[in-house]
Amino acid sequence: MSPLKVAILGLGTVGTGVARILLEHPDRISRRAGRPVQLVAAVVRNLEQPRDITLPTGTLTDDPDQAFADDVDVIIQLIGGINPALNLMQRAITSGKDVVTANKALLCEHGGDLFQLARKHGRCISFEAAVAGGVPIVAGIGQALSANQLSSIEAILNGTSNFILSEMLADRKSYRQVLKLSQDLGYAEVDPTLDVDGTDAAQKLVILTQLAFGTRVTLDDFARQGIDMLDLADLLYAHELGYRVKLLAVAKRVDDHLEMHVQPTLVRADRPLARTSGPRNTIALQGDAVGKLWFSGPGAGQMPTASAVVADLIDVATGRAAATFQQLDLWHDQQPIPVLPAEEIKHRYYLRFNVVDRPHVFADIAAILGRHDISLASIIQHEAPETFPEGHDEVVSVVVMTHRTSAGQLRAADRELDQLTSVVPPRIRMPVSN
Amino acid sequence: MSPLKVAILGLGTVGTGVARILLEHPDRISRRAGRPVQLVAAVVRNLEQPRDITLPTGTLTDDPDQAFADDVDVIIQLIGGINPALNLMQRAITSGKDVVTANKALLCEHGGDLFQLARKHGRCISFEAAVAGGVPIVAGIGQALSANQLSSIEAILNGTSNFILSEMLADRKSYRQVLKLSQDLGYAEVDPTLDVDGTDAAQKLVILTQLAFGTRVTLDDFARQGIDMLDLADLLYAHELGYRVKLLAVAKRVDDHLEMHVQPTLVRADRPLARTSGPRNTIALQGDAVGKLWFSGPGAGQMPTASAVVADLIDVATGRAAATFQQLDLWHDQQPIPVLPAEEIKHRYYLRFNVVDRPHVFADIAAILGRHDISLASIIQHEAPETFPEGHDEVVSVVVMTHRTSAGQLRAADRELDQLTSVVPPRIRMPVSN
Repeated sequence: MSPLKVAILGLGTVGTGVARILLEHPDRISRRAGRPVQLVAAVVRNLEQPRDITLPTGTLTDDPDQAFADDVDVIIQLIGGINPALNLMQRAITSGKDVVTANKALLCEHGGDLFQLARKHGRCISFEAAVAGGVPIVAGIGQALSANQLSSIEAILNGTSNFILSEMLADRKSYRQVLKLSQDLGYAEVDPTLDVDGTDAAQKLVILTQLAFGTRVTLDDFARQGIDMLDLADLLYAHELGYRVKLLAVAKRVDDHLEMHVQPTLVRADRPLARTSGPRNTIALQGDAVGKLWFSGPGAGQMPTASAVVADLIDVATGRAAATFQQLDLWHDQQPIPVLPAEEIKHRYYLRFNVVDRPHVFADIAAILGRHDISLASIIQHEAPETFPEGHDEVVSVVVMTHRTSAGQLRAADRELDQLTSVVPPRIRMPVSN
Repeated sequence: MSPLKVAILGLGTVGTGVARILLEHPDRISRRAGRPVQLVAAVVRNLEQPRDITLPTGTLTDDPDQAFADDVDVIIQLIGGINPALNLMQRAITSGKDVVTANKALLCEHGGDLFQLARKHGRCISFEAAVAGGVPIVAGIGQALSANQLSSIEAILNGTSNFILSEMLADRKSYRQVLKLSQDLGYAEVDPTLDVDGTDAAQKLVILTQLAFGTRVTLDDFARQGIDMLDLADLLYAHELGYRVKLLAVAKRVDDHLEMHVQPTLVRADRPLARTSGPRNTIALQGDAVGKLWFSGPGAGQMPTASAVVADLIDVATGRAAATFQQLDLWHDQQPIPVLPAEEIKHRYYLRFNVVDRPHVFADIAAILGRHDISLASIIQHEAPETFPEGHDEVVSVVVMTHRTSAGQLRAADRELDQLTSVVPPRIRMPVSN
């Protein structure tokens, strides 16, 4: 059978991993693809940059046209960000190529248009590697659970954040200390903003939500908050209460709405999500037929992500990708499901107040919460030290777990709590996963 | 598009679940299948038996010929055991039908012939539901991890056994007590033999091993042992040592061999496998590109298993099943990988000796183990009660964790241990997962 000809755009970490699998295991790949798979071009910006891999002569090029040559069947688009990735994707599709990509930001922002373009040209876009690296969650939702209507996705989708949270708790270190360590070890980017502020997880959640619920959502439709404001104290209080703090990405059906958010969330310590440590990703799904299902594994990294890219490539070669792409609920024109406004979402909450250590302060807080129908499930206040260190206010923490309440109710209570001179900023608030 | 016509053979628990999904969610299924899916026949042995579902008029029949009619495209074969399931599968394939099945015993024993027959007739056999119920492990290995050579499968594949082990430990009850409870609750069959003696898990392991390693294995190629001889005391000692006892099914590549076994195994308490409680299944995979990956979810039950059957049906409708079936490593003619003889497999071991409570007994045991190069990693001997209950021998347990040793070495030591009059049967031995 004639070989499937493949071009890679972008030979960074993941691109190098993909090339390595294709070049080192041609027998395995061609057996599973049903035909030989031939890497014909790897397009890079800088030909002079030293690389960890030796490509066949004539493959490495700085000329994108080589990827768009008539005899190329599939383009593996691994350039991150929006520009020039968007143009290159469009050009690939209109030139009649199938596309495999790991670019979540692009799919999050322009997936709708790109999918429409691909359908118009009879091509397919595969993107297993865009969400959760080596964990096959896109195939899981799009194929393996196709008999189900999903009702809930709860997921740890950012490995950097999860690594930082795990290390903070394990080593009793501050966010800043662990971030620095992660950067030194190469686990966190030099500019980690998109990882630690929740954007990366939110982009992935947008893709999974559209895949699972067949509705269009954008980053602006739901609240997101990162781990960059977290204090070790709250991780320790959560631990004491039998929980772990995780950067949880959630999309679930609540009546006729979708509840969506990405935020540090308390998860009961015995749940698989809570037990996900280090840079691992875990996705918990609930479907109407299957019940609860978990996928867990490496959410990033060179070879895990390359594993997902090459699986997609094999799916293109066998025709599975084309069959799947036609039927995906993703960016199809289905009944839209409105996203619940953040104010109306109900959670149990973890609240921490820093209070001046004197009588009646907690009574004042409890009275305000009570007036707003926020009832308390548990309270922790540790005994204050006999003497406070010199120069420190006599301030102690009071931690409260509430019963289910809406963000709106809490915000109303906040206005009264702001008036209490005995409560010292910041007040900490995190939702608790059910 | 013309509907895909489907017949179900066997309308038991799972068959009823499949019919329910098809009849209750026709829009969802046809959207994802790319065409309507029509249930045209459900073949049962006894038409008079009361059923939880009302089928369209003319669908319920006791005449198998109705399933093999020319216009039927797919047969969902849900009759368990070998006969008449084997004949019905062969007839389905030779009549030009694609087949979806959940029958692990049949695939374990006759998969090779059935796959060959299907390839010859250009048909496909899909069997996601045969292993781990609603957990998409067949698609996981066969598709999502197709870029990888797997090196290891470690799995909890029998929900009944796992439920019993979880309950024994949680409630401090004996195997017999929990088995009875499970049967009363309907979690265990009236005849639970195949579940609790390891056969069911071993059949599933045979299927996964052939899928992952492309080599032929049979139930006779490896050791299996069930949970039916387990004593609560060993679950408690394991717990004390920081482990859980799980009925673990293992297939892993060791140099040029496969190591395979199904047996109660100590698993470190913090591993996802150890934390799988109740009837859940968990599969831990290791691939050369992806690293470690976990799938976990309901391993049995009406709707989870039906979820897997209908996903296969949708794969048949879209053409994915045919594309996959051609390329599967399963029952293909690849290089065979010999299975390591049980005697040569090396493990760390948990050993429990019942010894008469008098001086030097442990020294005798340690000397024998030492002579056979079995070195000890840890030892537990609790203080004996001040007085033994009347009628009881003055016997105490000594628990030992060994370093890596072969079953052959242990068996050689056994011959000497048999001579020690101070060691009382039974001697307990379980391997420890790395």
